[in-house]
Amino acid sequence: MTEARATMPPGAGVVMPIGGAEDKLGRMTILREVIRLAGGSAARIVVISTASSLGDEITHAYLQLFAGLGVSDVVGIRPENRDQAGDAALVATIDRATAVFMTGGNQTKLATVIVGTPVGDAIRAAHLRGAVVAGTSAGASICSEHMVSFGSGGSTPKFRVGQVSQGLGLLSGVVVDQHFTQRNRFGRLLALVAANPGQLGVGIDEDTAAIVSASGRLEVKGRGVVTIIDGADVITTAYTATGTQPLMMSGLTLHTLPRGAIFDLTTRRLVSAPGLPDETEPPKVATLADVPEDMRPRTRRIAAEGAHTTTAELRRRPASS
Amino acid sequence: MTEARATMPPGAGVVMPIGGAEDKLGRMTILREVIRLAGGSAARIVVISTASSLGDEITHAYLQLFAGLGVSDVVGIRPENRDQAGDAALVATIDRATAVFMTGGNQTKLATVIVGTPVGDAIRAAHLRGAVVAGTSAGASICSEHMVSFGSGGSTPKFRVGQVSQGLGLLSGVVVDQHFTQRNRFGRLLALVAANPGQLGVGIDEDTAAIVSASGRLEVKGRGVVTIIDGADVITTAYTATGTQPLMMSGLTLHTLPRGAIFDLTTRRLVSAPGLPDETEPPKVATLADVPEDMRPRTRRIAAEGAHTTTAELRRRPASS
Repeated sequence: MTEARATMPPGAGVVMPIGGAEDKLGRMTILREVIRLAGGSAARIVVISTASSLGDEITHAYLQLFAGLGVSDVVGIRPENRDQAGDAALVATIDRATAVFMTGGNQTKLATVIVGTPVGDAIRAAHLRGAVVAGTSAGASICSEHMVSFGSGGSTPKFRVGQVSQGLGLLSGVVVDQHFTQRNRFGRLLALVAANPGQLGVGIDEDTAAIVSASGRLEVKGRGVVTIIDGADVITTAYTATGTQPLMMSGLTLHTLPRGAIFDLTTRRLVSAPGLPDETEPPKVATLADVPEDMRPRTRRIAAEGAHTTTAELRRRPASS
Repeated sequence: MTEARATMPPGAGVVMPIGGAEDKLGRMTILREVIRLAGGSAARIVVISTASSLGDEITHAYLQLFAGLGVSDVVGIRPENRDQAGDAALVATIDRATAVFMTGGNQTKLATVIVGTPVGDAIRAAHLRGAVVAGTSAGASICSEHMVSFGSGGSTPKFRVGQVSQGLGLLSGVVVDQHFTQRNRFGRLLALVAANPGQLGVGIDEDTAAIVSASGRLEVKGRGVVTIIDGADVITTAYTATGTQPLMMSGLTLHTLPRGAIFDLTTRRLVSAPGLPDETEPPKVATLADVPEDMRPRTRRIAAEGAHTTTAELRRRPASS
C-alpha cells in the first residue's frame, strides 16, 4: 500500500468539484450548497468563466442564478490570457471573495491561462484562508494538481486515452474527472490511475458534487454518484501497452458513492453512508436473557415481516416504551 | 472475505463465454480458438441458434464460418420451445459433439426454452465429459448459474438496472455480462454484484473471450478486455435503494484483463499476464559481486537507456555471451 497522499492544509476551505450540468432550474441543490458554504446571503462570490466558449453569456447566467438564490454580491471575471490573469484588480476581487466558482468549458484553456499567474495564486490563497472554491466540469478538473486535460470516452482503459497536465493543486493526490457516467469516462480514469497510481481517481457524475473539507473528508451531494478508483495495490503492465491496446490492471479498489456518503481521501476508506449501521458497535447476539420481561410481543409487525426465529434480532427497549 | 465459490468439476471441459460480435471476417481469433479447443479439423460442432431472431440465417452463417475454417462436421439445431428441447434426436446430436456453440440473441428466450430440458441437460453433460461449451452474447450469459436476463446500460449502478434468472450453470459463482464496454454495462454489473456479492461479476467486451478451464483458470483472448468485479469485501446499502437511486458500494475489487492475462476464479487473483515479472522470484538486489568479470560494458545500449547507477539492474550472463 503506498502512502495515501490526499491532504489539505488545516484552515483551508472546502473544495467543491461538480461533475457538470448542475441543476439550474429545479431544486438547484448544488448551487444552494455553494451559497450555504460561502456564508448564505452574505456570500461574496466570484464567477470565473475563462473555460467557457459562451463568453459573458455564461457569466451573466451564473450572476442571475446566484442573485435569484439571494446573493447580491456576485462578480464575474474572465481573464482571456496570462497577461490579463496578472491584473491586480482581478486579484483584489478574488481576495475579498468567500467563494470562487469556475464554470465549465475547456479546462486546458482555463489551466493555461491562470495556473501560475496572480489570478491562479489568488484562488489558491482564497482556498488557504478558508474560502470555498467550487468548479463545474472544466472548473472541477482544474482543482487537481494532476489534472485531466483531455481524452476520449469508453469503458476500456487504453494507452493515451487520457492526458494530464498541471492544475491548480487545490486537491493533491486526487485526479478529478467529470460528466463521469454521462460521457462513459470509466476507461479514461482507469488509464490515468494506471499511469499515476499515487493519485486517487475521482469521477463525478453530472449534477453531483464532491464536497472536500480541509480534513480530507469527501461528502457527496446531488443526483448521481462519485466513483473512486484506488490503484494503491494495483498490479499492471500499463507501461508496456502501446497504441490502442487495452491495459492490464488487477486489484484496483472501487467505490461508488451516492449523496450522503462520506469518504476519507487520506485513509481511502468509506466513513459513513445513509442506511449503514454504526461500524463502531460490534455485531449483536441476542439471547433470551436480553428480552425485557415486560416486552409485549408485537405480533402483527413480526408476522408482517415474515420473521423466522433464526433471523429475528431483538432490540433492548426502555421499560417505558 | 466470503469463500470463493467459482469452481468446476474435474474432467469438465472448457467454458468459453464470448462478449458478442466476434470477428467473422478477419483473423477470426475467437472462432479459431473454439475449433482448436474442440479438436481442430476433427471437431464435431453443434450450433444452437435458439436465442437469435435471425432464424436459420444465423445457423447457416456459423455453419459456413466453421466449414471455412476447416471443420466439416458442423450441425445446427434450433429448438423453439420446451417441447422441441425434449427431442431425442437433438440430444443425440449434442451427445456426440466436441463443442457446443450458442449464438447471440435473446438469452431469456434461450434460457426459458432450454434450461431444465433434455437439451439443456445434454449441454451440461457435454461440458462434464470434457466438450467445449462456447457462447457469444446471449450464449455467453447463459453459461452462468445466475444469468443476466436483461437490463439497461450506463456506468452508474442503480436499483433494478439489471435482472438475473437461472442459466445453464456451467460457470458457478460467476455472473457473465457481454458487449461490456460497447454497451456501457458497468453500472448494471456493479448493481448485480451489489445484490449478489457471492457472485463474481465478469464483463466481456466484444470480440473477446474468457476461456475458463476445469481448474477455474480464466484466460483472455481477443481484442478487448474482461472486466472482473469482486464484491467479497463490499460495504453496501444497495438493499435500501429504491427507484432510480444510485447504489452505495464501497471496497469492490476490480480487474481489467486484456488478452493473455490469466485469472484464477477460485482465489479471485491474477495468475499472470504478458509483460509481468515472475511473481515467484524475489526482487533482485545487484551488487558489484554479481557483475561477471568478463562482462563488456554495453556502453551504447546503456547510454541509450539513459540509465542512472541507482536504477541499473545488472543481469548475470553466461560467459559465452
